[in-house]
Amino acid sequence: MISESRTIWWDNGIKTIDQTRLPAEFVVITIRSIKELVNAITSLKIRGAPALGAAGGYGIALAAMRSKFQERDGVLHEMEIAAEMIKNSRPTAVNLSWGVDRVLRAAQEGEIADEVREIALREAERIAEEDLIINKMIGRHGAKLLNDGDSVLTHCNAGRLACVGWGTALGVIRQAVMDGKEIHVYACETRPLNQGSRLTSWELMEDNIDVTLVCDSASGILMRRGMIDSVIVGADRITRDAVFNKIGTYTHAVLAKAHGIPFYVAAPLSTFDASHDESEIVIEERDGDELRRLGVTRLAPDGVKVYNPAFDATPIDLVSAMITEKGVFRQPLMPPGIL
Amino acid sequence: MISESRTIWWDNGIKTIDQTRLPAEFVVITIRSIKELVNAITSLKIRGAPALGAAGGYGIALAAMRSKFQERDGVLHEMEIAAEMIKNSRPTAVNLSWGVDRVLRAAQEGEIADEVREIALREAERIAEEDLIINKMIGRHGAKLLNDGDSVLTHCNAGRLACVGWGTALGVIRQAVMDGKEIHVYACETRPLNQGSRLTSWELMEDNIDVTLVCDSASGILMRRGMIDSVIVGADRITRDAVFNKIGTYTHAVLAKAHGIPFYVAAPLSTFDASHDESEIVIEERDGDELRRLGVTRLAPDGVKVYNPAFDATPIDLVSAMITEKGVFRQPLMPPGIL
Repeated sequence: MISESRTIWWDNGIKTIDQTRLPAEFVVITIRSIKELVNAITSLKIRGAPALGAAGGYGIALAAMRSKFQERDGVLHEMEIAAEMIKNSRPTAVNLSWGVDRVLRAAQEGEIADEVREIALREAERIAEEDLIINKMIGRHGAKLLNDGDSVLTHCNAGRLACVGWGTALGVIRQAVMDGKEIHVYACETRPLNQGSRLTSWELMEDNIDVTLVCDSASGILMRRGMIDSVIVGADRITRDAVFNKIGTYTHAVLAKAHGIPFYVAAPLSTFDASHDESEIVIEERDGDELRRLGVTRLAPDGVKVYNPAFDATPIDLVSAMITEKGVFRQPLMPPGIL
Repeated sequence: MISESRTIWWDNGIKTIDQTRLPAEFVVITIRSIKELVNAITSLKIRGAPALGAAGGYGIALAAMRSKFQERDGVLHEMEIAAEMIKNSRPTAVNLSWGVDRVLRAAQEGEIADEVREIALREAERIAEEDLIINKMIGRHGAKLLNDGDSVLTHCNAGRLACVGWGTALGVIRQAVMDGKEIHVYACETRPLNQGSRLTSWELMEDNIDVTLVCDSASGILMRRGMIDSVIVGADRITRDAVFNKIGTYTHAVLAKAHGIPFYVAAPLSTFDASHDESEIVIEERDGDELRRLGVTRLAPDGVKVYNPAFDATPIDLVSAMITEKGVFRQPLMPPGIL
């Protein structure tokens, strides 16, 4: 009943589900160049912190595979150029850089060009496989926080579509359901790109997990009416002092605090970035047309000014616990070895 | 520069701007039956508490005009049937019932059928004219709360499109701009029907007032970054203990409190309902398709469960001041004579 399928894999190129076409169509695309990969990332065909980690890794492997150089250094040089292009496509997401750097570093060990290629692909595959294992561990640790009959609010999509598979926030919910608990999910639609409507609802319905779609701004009334037992979200980057996640996460965190509801962040250790503070992170601002139009429908006057940050920062004192593959961390919030 | 035009008026039927077609098209429709009026209200062609008050009044006048009875009692009986139909079309909005009841009560004074018709139309016109005057007074009182250079967050549309003209929350902003202050408005798009994108942005751009469109869930990041000086919203009903307004209002109120930002409610006294508590008011739940689709675009899987309350309730202790035609009320919050 609960899907174990993968969202991203290697098969003569990077194969992934085009997330912009869900829920209307389920389409698997093949990415065969760095340009196509950058386009897939910026257009959010691939999204979600852990999935971006794997995409970054596979991207470097792709650069290695496509390089026509016969010499080790030529291949590595092309990989480095690709690394910059890939990292710049979604700068707020730390996992992307992490995946890119990990494969690049591993590949340096190769003594000849073919060995560089072989190591790069192997390391990228390893990232993807580890991601699945890590998500399962996050799920097992986090599921203990959910009680039978709980209603859980989530924002955006921190599900299997955001990862190589299984999911972080939704992985916790999947595991709780596997453990026999009855869990009800309120999925916030997540404007402006509706990852909650399009992806989270779809994923949970595929798995027969009870889900209700709500407007982002309904989290207040839900909490005030006692309809929410906990909030679980994923993260794009966790600095020493703040959790960067989809715009709107911070509003849910403030509301959860005001209502005494636990606010959990489920994320692999690769999302933690102990070398930065909130103030050092630039939040990506996206095109205003995301709010001016939807499909062919005009929502706002042409030319209206728009402020469209993709993420917000939630100070960690609003987080009740961090759910990671190493366990659940409350006091201190940061997993050992991170700071 | 600042528009004084009316949103609803009488001209052989009820004339109004079809708000569902903005900003793509500006279309004036004529409503010639109670059935058409009920349809216009439920489909939100007419919306906004004060506009609904005028629509309710004009609706009763329309029932009187269309009645074929020659006898006073026959006409009044048809007006009473119309009254029930109109009130039930949008039960959370107290102004609608208020407008209906006021015209119905006035018309009882008529001694013959034609006099009933005449009084009904005159009283409906009076409600509309008073609304304009009241909004101007709300604007003048409220504008004193805004300083030159302020950035104001608003939700939904409490502008001239929500009223007979001028606006409540946006009337305050219009007056401040007329007074020579530089005011910047952040308009929340207001899911699921995007009154902020479609109506507030359009209205303010028409008047050359500086406006930026944001996602509802961006109010947190805006406040945290110090980009908001105050929040001003309208209201659909103010009970002894709570302000009922468009879904999402409560989330902004909690966030404003958490950031020490004033949260103002601008509403005529006709919005106050001292005979009820929050717990007695049923919040209208609207069709889930409002979240599942937008125009021809499918946003979520067909059949996904949706919870779509049209309004939420903000406890009055989160309100910094009530802005009414009788002045600004802080301590106590309720205008004299209301409780």
